[in-house]
Amino acid sequence: MDGKAISLRTKLEIYRADGGEAGLANCPIRDVIQVISGRWSSLLMMALAEQPYRFGQLRRLIPDISQRMLTQTLHDLQRDGYVHREVFATKPPSVEYSLTDLGRSMFEPLLGLIQWAERNHRAVRTARADFDLGDAAE
Amino acid sequence: MDGKAISLRTKLEIYRADGGEAGLANCPIRDVIQVISGRWSSLLMMALAEQPYRFGQLRRLIPDISQRMLTQTLHDLQRDGYVHREVFATKPPSVEYSLTDLGRSMFEPLLGLIQWAERNHRAVRTARADFDLGDAAE
Repeated sequence: MDGKAISLRTKLEIYRADGGEAGLANCPIRDVIQVISGRWSSLLMMALAEQPYRFGQLRRLIPDISQRMLTQTLHDLQRDGYVHREVFATKPPSVEYSLTDLGRSMFEPLLGLIQWAERNHRAVRTARADFDLGDAAE
Repeated sequence: MDGKAISLRTKLEIYRADGGEAGLANCPIRDVIQVISGRWSSLLMMALAEQPYRFGQLRRLIPDISQRMLTQTLHDLQRDGYVHREVFATKPPSVEYSLTDLGRSMFEPLLGLIQWAERNHRAVRTARADFDLGDAAE
């Protein structure tokens, strides 16, 4: 862990030193993780890891996402190469979303994080409740 | 993968069915991943996985984060139990941030995602450039 950590710090410093703002944009954590970790990205990746879905099906599967946010998130995931958008010439035309090979590859570590969240949901909620109690007592 | 995927869909449906809005809040992906995946959370977790840092040190390490966002992100990570905030009675008082056991546990799968991002940064940028070219051609 220690060896890894030091190399990570070195990386942080390299990204920072490498040409100011341009160097910061080369940081894969800023540049890649931010799309992966958008408000709805994990949930959509999880759904599409299971099977291709049409737009309306995704809306029904995730009832608390707005049409605008679903469109935007699918667009961002498609732009970064994780999601493929296929238009079928039916009447009316139908649009199907599926994971690309890159998307499947990214979903593997993402699933690790999702499974951690499921296993530790109670611990996180307990921490949050304790923190809010402490805040209220101050 | 298939067995897993089906059980994930079942979970999605359970979270949805379990009492409407309240059920949705029980979804660990919505509830846990969203804090983990905030704009700056990954970067701060990565820094703190390496060693404890004081506030000012974190600001210098990540020069493009604003003071307000750094404060807010540390607060959120502390509230969910990943980060411990220790105040030392020096003059002036100094504040140090470190990972808790829960934070270290969560950092393991997060590191998997970070390493994927580093390995695949070029593929993501290529996909993005291709997509933008296609958009411009439409």
